[in-house]
Amino acid sequence: MTPGKKLQGLVAATVTPMTPDGQINPSVICQYVDYLVREQNVRNVFVNGTTGEGLSLSVQERKQLAEEWVHQGKDKLDHVVVHVGALSLAESQELARHAAAIGASGIAVIAPFFFKPTHKVRVEEMLDGIKEQIPTFQGVKFSDTDLLDLAQCVNKNEREQFAFLYGVDEQLLSALAIGADGAVGSTYNYLGQKTNLMLQAFAKPDLVLARKYQFLIGEFLSFVIKLGFGVAQTKAVMTFVSGIPMGPPRLPLVDASEEFTVKAKAKLESILWPDGH
Amino acid sequence: MTPGKKLQGLVAATVTPMTPDGQINPSVICQYVDYLVREQNVRNVFVNGTTGEGLSLSVQERKQLAEEWVHQGKDKLDHVVVHVGALSLAESQELARHAAAIGASGIAVIAPFFFKPTHKVRVEEMLDGIKEQIPTFQGVKFSDTDLLDLAQCVNKNEREQFAFLYGVDEQLLSALAIGADGAVGSTYNYLGQKTNLMLQAFAKPDLVLARKYQFLIGEFLSFVIKLGFGVAQTKAVMTFVSGIPMGPPRLPLVDASEEFTVKAKAKLESILWPDGH
Amino acid sequence: MTPGKKLQGLVAATVTPMTPDGQINPSVICQYVDYLVREQNVRNVFVNGTTGEGLSLSVQERKQLAEEWVHQGKDKLDHVVVHVGALSLAESQELARHAAAIGASGIAVIAPFFFKPTHKVRVEEMLDGIKEQIPTFQGVKFSDTDLLDLAQCVNKNEREQFAFLYGVDEQLLSALAIGADGAVGSTYNYLGQKTNLMLQAFAKPDLVLARKYQFLIGEFLSFVIKLGFGVAQTKAVMTFVSGIPMGPPRLPLVDASEEFTVKAKAKLESILWPDGH
Amino acid sequence: MTPGKKLQGLVAATVTPMTPDGQINPSVICQYVDYLVREQNVRNVFVNGTTGEGLSLSVQERKQLAEEWVHQGKDKLDHVVVHVGALSLAESQELARHAAAIGASGIAVIAPFFFKPTHKVRVEEMLDGIKEQIPTFQGVKFSDTDLLDLAQCVNKNEREQFAFLYGVDEQLLSALAIGADGAVGSTYNYLGQKTNLMLQAFAKPDLVLARKYQFLIGEFLSFVIKLGFGVAQTKAVMTFVSGIPMGPPRLPLVDASEEFTVKAKAKLESILWPDGH
Repeated sequence: MTPGKKLQGLVAATVTPMTPDGQINPSVICQYVDYLVREQNVRNVFVNGTTGEGLSLSVQERKQLAEEWVHQGKDKLDHVVVHVGALSLAESQELARHAAAIGASGIAVIAPFFFKPTHKVRVEEMLDGIKEQIPTFQGVKFSDTDLLDLAQCVNKNEREQFAFLYGVDEQLLSALAIGADGAVGSTYNYLGQKTNLMLQAFAKPDLVLARKYQFLIGEFLSFVIKLGFGVAQTKAVMTFVSGIPMGPPRLPLVDASEEFTVKAKAKLESILWPDGH
Repeated sequence: MTPGKKLQGLVAATVTPMTPDGQINPSVICQYVDYLVREQNVRNVFVNGTTGEGLSLSVQERKQLAEEWVHQGKDKLDHVVVHVGALSLAESQELARHAAAIGASGIAVIAPFFFKPTHKVRVEEMLDGIKEQIPTFQGVKFSDTDLLDLAQCVNKNEREQFAFLYGVDEQLLSALAIGADGAVGSTYNYLGQKTNLMLQAFAKPDLVLARKYQFLIGEFLSFVIKLGFGVAQTKAVMTFVSGIPMGPPRLPLVDASEEFTVKAKAKLESILWPDGH
Repeated sequence: MTPGKKLQGLVAATVTPMTPDGQINPSVICQYVDYLVREQNVRNVFVNGTTGEGLSLSVQERKQLAEEWVHQGKDKLDHVVVHVGALSLAESQELARHAAAIGASGIAVIAPFFFKPTHKVRVEEMLDGIKEQIPTFQGVKFSDTDLLDLAQCVNKNEREQFAFLYGVDEQLLSALAIGADGAVGSTYNYLGQKTNLMLQAFAKPDLVLARKYQFLIGEFLSFVIKLGFGVAQTKAVMTFVSGIPMGPPRLPLVDASEEFTVKAKAKLESILWPDGH
Repeated sequence: MTPGKKLQGLVAATVTPMTPDGQINPSVICQYVDYLVREQNVRNVFVNGTTGEGLSLSVQERKQLAEEWVHQGKDKLDHVVVHVGALSLAESQELARHAAAIGASGIAVIAPFFFKPTHKVRVEEMLDGIKEQIPTFQGVKFSDTDLLDLAQCVNKNEREQFAFLYGVDEQLLSALAIGADGAVGSTYNYLGQKTNLMLQAFAKPDLVLARKYQFLIGEFLSFVIKLGFGVAQTKAVMTFVSGIPMGPPRLPLVDASEEFTVKAKAKLESILWPDGH
């Protein structure tokens, strides 16, 4: 990893490779890292999150996966962020200590979702005084479509140095427009290179070109969402795009259908991108 | 109105002026038109919509208001769009015929909301073949935060001439980024001039400046939303900003509190806009 | 109608008969009244409610239907309750005055559902002091599955004389258990006689028999709900059960499919009721 | 435990006693068992469920608690059901094997709630062929207010031997009416004796008396629900009713306020029960 480098741009929410019988398969993570860097130009990963089925894994499996990503990412990736959220606070703390010990770039935690805080707060409000409470706090993965809240977060951040990474891949351009620093998502596993071209167009700014990329990414996502799209389907797409066998998901998820895979592949190949590839 | 002029830019969703005892008060619409044009640089209005409490009015009242807006808007406004939606299809048809007869620029209808169509469709899907079914179809007021759907609509529209006007005022910049043509909303009654400056900055493109305007507009809306913000409160804000007495809302809505009005006024006056006003 | 008689037992939420081209068809209401009384042993009706598509009708049509029900129900029905709710409060008041003038037994209004009161109240809380505010208040059609709220309503009512009529037909027995006085629903149009047998069993009390009826009623409703069940389908069922042509629904509702009608008829005929019919 | 005895009547969803610093406190479970049997006449417990904060505990803690309940319940309780649900299927299987090994009466699992099955099924449909797939399947804790579904379950069960235990404590009487066999809930920890009197009244049947108990139980629950009622508050109530220190909840839950405890105690003591206690 690259110490001190600010987290921005694209972060791939990685899937967890599994063997056909449902065991985790860390042996292909080396190949996965090279693929992300070379084929997708993506140098940041988010490990053991929802896309990685983190909450369906045991604590031991999560540690093993985090170790392998940090190990294989050395000198190749800029950031390896490890998701350490768990329903048991003790387990979450154990995972956080482990991530620190192995040299992960950072940790992330999902907000409590079984027992929940009793009142909803806007993310903007949550930021008040957060540096005093969590000095290592670096930023937020913002996955809501309420962009007013995101805009107020970005606004509050003028003097501080938080990163706001957007998590609704199909409307990233809209979040960039109001000041998001980057994005965390599963689509950057296989559409990272195209999304990077969108980021470049936006930076110029060439909004017409940026919009064209966003349209085409949305075209694919809109298509697969209608077919039923989740982590299992992401694994199937990643397998045919990268050539790395990502394996089946864990129960209660079930493998993507052959029909889904055939249709998704045909759709993806049918798209004519502005860069001609 | 200006015949043939494409509907774009800002459309004020007008409130319905009422007398203190709750009768409609068309006598101030002349003044309202001049205020919108001169103070807010807004030349399009959306009459009898949600902001105008259209569904709380009788058919007769709705006709009277539409007539007054069309009459007063002559040679001053570009477009007077009349909302004709009603739970009774027969009443809706009657209002549509009336709007055509008085020379309104267009009509709009809310989708059925008591008895509802049995399956949800994306707006994008709804556009398929719509010109064959509704030859006069001009566009959509899009009020969802699902911007993937909006982006696909805009994309489908490349060769056709539909207008996509965005209806979530607090995140208009995000919708512009993916190609919205303009906006319909209640805030353009009193923040139309500032929003026009945002549109100009976006057109340059000067995204940093556009974002600054969006932040500040969001700052005000975020503040009043926390206080409880609806049609009654919009009438109160409009009354103190424009100086035109907009009166109370109809039941089941109740008048904004004095406390709300004091706080909202103080907040609006505290904002320092980039144009120095 | 029977003046002064307390409203209890079953109330049929009537459908509005229409001609094939979608006009209201009051000419069959006389036949409809005789059918309810003779075949279903139901002597109370709820007119122009949701089942009657009241909100899709014009004010004039609603008045005409109310008049016909009151006229035909004279000396045959105990109660003709007219639903007078409308989005426009003025229209609702006009309908209420009309209902009083023609001698309806009572009126009912839906709570505001477009512009809504800003906080949810339990029905129980709503009853506090309601007699002071609405001296003619007689009771509530309770259509929620939150039976704690209903139980507390019934409890509050010990000394007063409100009627609590339950509106979720498929779980009426559960509401009776905690003290509901009767029921308003669309199924009493065609399963009124069977439901009356359930009420009799409950009154004995013979809970095993009551449960048997509830099971079988639920068996039919569960079956048609899976097929897609609404007002249009209720009209189709009523047409084949009563032999009275109820016609199509108004848009946005569309006619039940032929397939639905065939399946629903077969299901209803397949049920073996404890009374042997 | 009592082998072979059918699970019916009341099952207390137990809280997990904790020390003031948040560690589990199995030392009071012996006292807890005696209290339930002697004071509440409740002989079945549901351990490590939602009320027991099972999902906030580590696997090791859950095993330790299950062991203590089985050990202390020997010859005193009829059934000790251990909840073994977890987000990780492997952990859930491990807990299930452990429960079998220590001699628990049965296990229960929550349906997957992070990654969810892709379509909602009615419980009734789930029962089809379940004995072939899960030969040891004994019944369902049914916690929905959709009593049509419960009724159809009970109906399907005529020849088979499943238990349907209802989980919405405030409307148990309604579920009994349509055939529930008993109930699982947190209120049976402190209102078990009163609820048992309701069950007896219902069995006679004396519905008027049963309803009186349900009203009063609902009166208390309705009161505390308005104050904000969850697992933390249940622990507070249990502490003052039983005299056994149940301790604080685990984060993200926080301790009940002193104000809550004072008000809840006063309310509970103010209720005049039909049995004069």
